[in-house]
Amino acid sequence: MSQRSFGRDARTARPLDFQCDFTQNADGSVLVSTGNTKVICTAFLEDKVPGFLKNQGVGWVTAEYGMLPGATHQRTLREAAKGKQQGRTVEIQRLIGRSLRACVNCQDLGERTIVIDCDVIQADGGTRTAAITGGCVALYLCLWKHRKKFFSPPLAGRVAAVSLGILDGQVLVDLDYEEDSTVDVDMNLVKTESGRFIEIQGTAENRPFSQEQMMQVLEQGGAALDTVFEKQKQALLNYGVEPAWLTR
Amino acid sequence: MSQRSFGRDARTARPLDFQCDFTQNADGSVLVSTGNTKVICTAFLEDKVPGFLKNQGVGWVTAEYGMLPGATHQRTLREAAKGKQQGRTVEIQRLIGRSLRACVNCQDLGERTIVIDCDVIQADGGTRTAAITGGCVALYLCLWKHRKKFFSPPLAGRVAAVSLGILDGQVLVDLDYEEDSTVDVDMNLVKTESGRFIEIQGTAENRPFSQEQMMQVLEQGGAALDTVFEKQKQALLNYGVEPAWLTR
Amino acid sequence: MSQRSFGRDARTARPLDFQCDFTQNADGSVLVSTGNTKVICTAFLEDKVPGFLKNQGVGWVTAEYGMLPGATHQRTLREAAKGKQQGRTVEIQRLIGRSLRACVNCQDLGERTIVIDCDVIQADGGTRTAAITGGCVALYLCLWKHRKKFFSPPLAGRVAAVSLGILDGQVLVDLDYEEDSTVDVDMNLVKTESGRFIEIQGTAENRPFSQEQMMQVLEQGGAALDTVFEKQKQALLNYGVEPAWLTR
Amino acid sequence: MSQRSFGRDARTARPLDFQCDFTQNADGSVLVSTGNTKVICTAFLEDKVPGFLKNQGVGWVTAEYGMLPGATHQRTLREAAKGKQQGRTVEIQRLIGRSLRACVNCQDLGERTIVIDCDVIQADGGTRTAAITGGCVALYLCLWKHRKKFFSPPLAGRVAAVSLGILDGQVLVDLDYEEDSTVDVDMNLVKTESGRFIEIQGTAENRPFSQEQMMQVLEQGGAALDTVFEKQKQALLNYGVEPAWLTR
Amino acid sequence: MSQRSFGRDARTARPLDFQCDFTQNADGSVLVSTGNTKVICTAFLEDKVPGFLKNQGVGWVTAEYGMLPGATHQRTLREAAKGKQQGRTVEIQRLIGRSLRACVNCQDLGERTIVIDCDVIQADGGTRTAAITGGCVALYLCLWKHRKKFFSPPLAGRVAAVSLGILDGQVLVDLDYEEDSTVDVDMNLVKTESGRFIEIQGTAENRPFSQEQMMQVLEQGGAALDTVFEKQKQALLNYGVEPAWLTR
Amino acid sequence: MSQRSFGRDARTARPLDFQCDFTQNADGSVLVSTGNTKVICTAFLEDKVPGFLKNQGVGWVTAEYGMLPGATHQRTLREAAKGKQQGRTVEIQRLIGRSLRACVNCQDLGERTIVIDCDVIQADGGTRTAAITGGCVALYLCLWKHRKKFFSPPLAGRVAAVSLGILDGQVLVDLDYEEDSTVDVDMNLVKTESGRFIEIQGTAENRPFSQEQMMQVLEQGGAALDTVFEKQKQALLNYGVEPAWLTR
Repeated sequence: MSQRSFGRDARTARPLDFQCDFTQNADGSVLVSTGNTKVICTAFLEDKVPGFLKNQGVGWVTAEYGMLPGATHQRTLREAAKGKQQGRTVEIQRLIGRSLRACVNCQDLGERTIVIDCDVIQADGGTRTAAITGGCVALYLCLWKHRKKFFSPPLAGRVAAVSLGILDGQVLVDLDYEEDSTVDVDMNLVKTESGRFIEIQGTAENRPFSQEQMMQVLEQGGAALDTVFEKQKQALLNYGVEPAWLTR
Repeated sequence: MSQRSFGRDARTARPLDFQCDFTQNADGSVLVSTGNTKVICTAFLEDKVPGFLKNQGVGWVTAEYGMLPGATHQRTLREAAKGKQQGRTVEIQRLIGRSLRACVNCQDLGERTIVIDCDVIQADGGTRTAAITGGCVALYLCLWKHRKKFFSPPLAGRVAAVSLGILDGQVLVDLDYEEDSTVDVDMNLVKTESGRFIEIQGTAENRPFSQEQMMQVLEQGGAALDTVFEKQKQALLNYGVEPAWLTR
Repeated sequence: MSQRSFGRDARTARPLDFQCDFTQNADGSVLVSTGNTKVICTAFLEDKVPGFLKNQGVGWVTAEYGMLPGATHQRTLREAAKGKQQGRTVEIQRLIGRSLRACVNCQDLGERTIVIDCDVIQADGGTRTAAITGGCVALYLCLWKHRKKFFSPPLAGRVAAVSLGILDGQVLVDLDYEEDSTVDVDMNLVKTESGRFIEIQGTAENRPFSQEQMMQVLEQGGAALDTVFEKQKQALLNYGVEPAWLTR
Repeated sequence: MSQRSFGRDARTARPLDFQCDFTQNADGSVLVSTGNTKVICTAFLEDKVPGFLKNQGVGWVTAEYGMLPGATHQRTLREAAKGKQQGRTVEIQRLIGRSLRACVNCQDLGERTIVIDCDVIQADGGTRTAAITGGCVALYLCLWKHRKKFFSPPLAGRVAAVSLGILDGQVLVDLDYEEDSTVDVDMNLVKTESGRFIEIQGTAENRPFSQEQMMQVLEQGGAALDTVFEKQKQALLNYGVEPAWLTR
Repeated sequence: MSQRSFGRDARTARPLDFQCDFTQNADGSVLVSTGNTKVICTAFLEDKVPGFLKNQGVGWVTAEYGMLPGATHQRTLREAAKGKQQGRTVEIQRLIGRSLRACVNCQDLGERTIVIDCDVIQADGGTRTAAITGGCVALYLCLWKHRKKFFSPPLAGRVAAVSLGILDGQVLVDLDYEEDSTVDVDMNLVKTESGRFIEIQGTAENRPFSQEQMMQVLEQGGAALDTVFEKQKQALLNYGVEPAWLTR
Repeated sequence: MSQRSFGRDARTARPLDFQCDFTQNADGSVLVSTGNTKVICTAFLEDKVPGFLKNQGVGWVTAEYGMLPGATHQRTLREAAKGKQQGRTVEIQRLIGRSLRACVNCQDLGERTIVIDCDVIQADGGTRTAAITGGCVALYLCLWKHRKKFFSPPLAGRVAAVSLGILDGQVLVDLDYEEDSTVDVDMNLVKTESGRFIEIQGTAENRPFSQEQMMQVLEQGGAALDTVFEKQKQALLNYGVEPAWLTR
């Protein structure tokens, strides 16, 4: 293994940082940084639900994902100008939406929708996992701001995500862009704070992987997520979110 | 657990059938049936590659997925008429493409593209896994037809897929539509004949799942795929494909 | 005239076959085969009408047409992926819709819509006429399934279609793809079982045609349609549709 | 039959007028008026051909059709603003293109394309037949302007079109909008000056029609077109086009 | 300065003409000609308002702009066929809409919308200013036709527009196409008959301009507009519009 | 006049700040803040030109504009998801492109394109003027990074923009969102550092404005821009851009 960015070993994730209230107009807003990957996550609470949920008394959580044209080394074409979201974008925002839906108790939410936007302003690998981890914080900030609207907080627990790869048989945690381009296998784990799985997605870009490697990925991914959950918690506590909100 | 379709137990997949040469114009064509799910898979070999691969001497494999409007109990809107593929469609065809790319040695393919189309004519759950399993057969038939063009068959080995779910803590193999709508967790496994992983995708629609449940899914999915690979092999042998093609 | 496919003479249509209930989810479903052209026709009865017919107590019949990418010798681009139906597709599905509207008494239908989908799975010329002939069968099966909803069957009579061409002055009935590419004139006739015209469309691709040739086309087309109507009737009778439904 | 517009009987077409050089920038331009229907037809000769004809030494003729939003009694939505041409528009412009292609000898044209635009500025029925009749004039004016480029005029002969309807069993020639909305059958005939058929399109909107009615339509349509061809000829002669151009 | 078209000096606009009732189906219709630039302007009064104005008791004015493909020396691509309006078109029609909104008292209009369509049939520079000047006339004709619907005419006063340019330091009034392609600065002024500004848009395509040049543009533009307003008034008076309508 | 934000008087602009290198992947990057309006501006130098400039030895400057969904108090719909840029977006990015083109000497640039992206992350009025002012800085940083590629810096001078409004007859400089919603007139001035005009755009949303008010706008806008140019210069000097680059 060549030297990894930020001088870390195979099992260690990049420095993670949350800048809450990064922008001021959304109901919840955070800039999440995972190494050099930076994503603005904002959340809004809207008093309506999609058509298929009307008059059922339950709410919804949805997410959208975008990448600024200037976020990458080569300029990325602007999807709005092309008139179409790429397949990759569609796939990512569906993953984020499913993952963040697991944070919320849609019964307690009532007929409301939380919309989370994750816009990458600087890309260096792991944008989708950063978006999930940061999107959860934005969602919590949004509900915290509107906490008076709810009898009990419509929360099911925090979620976070981490990427992993297998390179020449070795498992690497939290890939940067350069690593992401070279690994044989690319995995994303989304789990709850209580250690259960929300999503697992693994793709053998080059070389299929064994059952044993799968086991290592699950073990190291879980360990890395423990740290992520701790930082998420600190960020929310520092913001002033009540500790009771963070332990369900 | 209520009675499962086709009188099977939790670990058993639905009857699987391949009708090779289902249509006659494509280079390879098969109707794959998994219980009541039926998918037409066709494959073409084209003497060109996408722009990003030009002049590199390597080939490409790509897939598209569609659902006939009449395939479902409620008519599905025609995507061509709406002018847009749904997010679900985009996500599925990217999965199929990645999976089938693993069948092929793109170096040996040369500057050619294999395009696999998977069109669902009758839907009863598991359309994407049927598409992968059947798409692999169509791909083999296509290359068999053109075998004289290649010094050595540009094959990396067969792939197949199966869906699994977790319902009230019990793992179910090969979900039909009704089961798919009720399970807490929905997983798709794509593996090689040699038992290695190509793709794993698991989503906890309702309830996060434990490490132990993950282990059961991996075990039972692997066992179910052994049967699938055997039927795939028989279909190709019956068609006349050389046994040597089926063992790499 | 070179030898025609299926060893037929200029006045004879290709073998015609209807496979009712080809798929099981739609309200009516048939696989129609005209020689090597195969089209899946499905029909649904929906309890709504387009905006321009709301609250008028009458129903509507509409059709959509598609071609699987693998239906042709050279793969056809998927219209859903291009984000647009081709002009040819639009023109064909408007023809099918107008033709099948003539089968139905929209007053007796009430505020309901019948949607017929015609998807070509194998193309060898005459896909639009096969779609009309088969679409009529799917429509009848759909109404037969829902017959208890109607005081009197909302039927105006069966329709069927046939293609004709003029090649070096000779009229040919039911062109296959190769003939279709070479004829000077391409005609489609849509008639009722009682021998009246629903649609006539003739195009001189290469050489304008005379009044006398027009007369021959009308005469031979009418004769060929008599056979088509007989086979349609047998298919519906064999399915169990009441004879009284087939004679109006 | 109620009184027809312009005090005419069933067999008589509306007053027809050609205003050549109606606009000055196109290579050929004419305002064609059929009663109150007015269509601007322009033609350009371009030194290129569509991709499928490249390097074959032959030319192409294509047409586009549009309707100004203000052309109708109720404003029509602008297709450019909707981002899509309607099915009706697509169908009409394909008909115009096929018809005008019959005017031209594509071998003599060389690798050039004639593009004819037909834009309706006032609509009162028969816009597509007016577009064909006027488009032929614009095409002739365009070739006349560029006549020095050709060794022999790349002309195959003039074409013109007329609409007909059947109302309560009676054939009507050249329907205005009100008639068009009420007839049982709507036909369009496109013929050459020499009396041969280019296109025939007939649709029984309400009531199928008989063989005998078909005969009457063909006879009366032919007679009406004789007059149209004469007026077309006069317009071109008055403009200064050489008589020899008008007799092939 | 080279010789200007129509033999005019730098301060003089091209001949301006209004042909009222140019087409007969719209509520108001005029062909406006500015030299060789010709634009059909039509107006409709519709008994509805956009969503954002519902139930507020006020009306709306909106405009759309188009260019016939045959209006230019080189054929322009049809926006409806491309499936998209160009940026230039969007920008122009927003300008026309804002300008014509200033003609109308939206309170007195009630919950109605006036839609003005400006379609260029011949382009020689200044199409957007001609569209505003002519659109105002179409709007007046439309309201005049419906005058019985209003207690008091919902008018705020006439508007008109003129283009100006700076070429080698000299201000030119009412640019034709050739001038428009060469000037250093391109300005559009929209004013009310009472001499107040509605819109000013100036762009230094090549060379930034000075405060002093700005002053000359404002002065000469104002003078040119005095003449335009006089001709607009004459056209409306000749049509029969009550003089009292023209002086507010 | 009610109290203005940041305690300023009518003639004073909001605090302006440039954070150079805000992101690290683009060739030039700056976060520009005008009060609470924040825009990320990035610039790339690409070795190609649009089709209409090929083989002419000159370069091009283009700009795109976007607004993050979370930038506003009410969430804005994502244009990429709608599949279309709004008219307002198209108009703004054309303005930015024209303005920044004036910074560059396209001859000296050679066959290269500078693409500037301006993405609003927090909106409080004046986003288009902030985008121009910040876009100029990003453009300079981009050229500074690539300075070795040019014999002489391909610069024509800096540009900057400011918005102004007229409210109850009083001119206000640099409107925030609340002011922008209430003013009668909305103007944008784009000038060069040498005090010449690049663009002027003024719209009387509610009440036409007089010549005298126009004069005040020009005077106060010019004064405000002097301060903007000074801050731009300081930001670039602090970054290390050579003073000689800032004085042309």
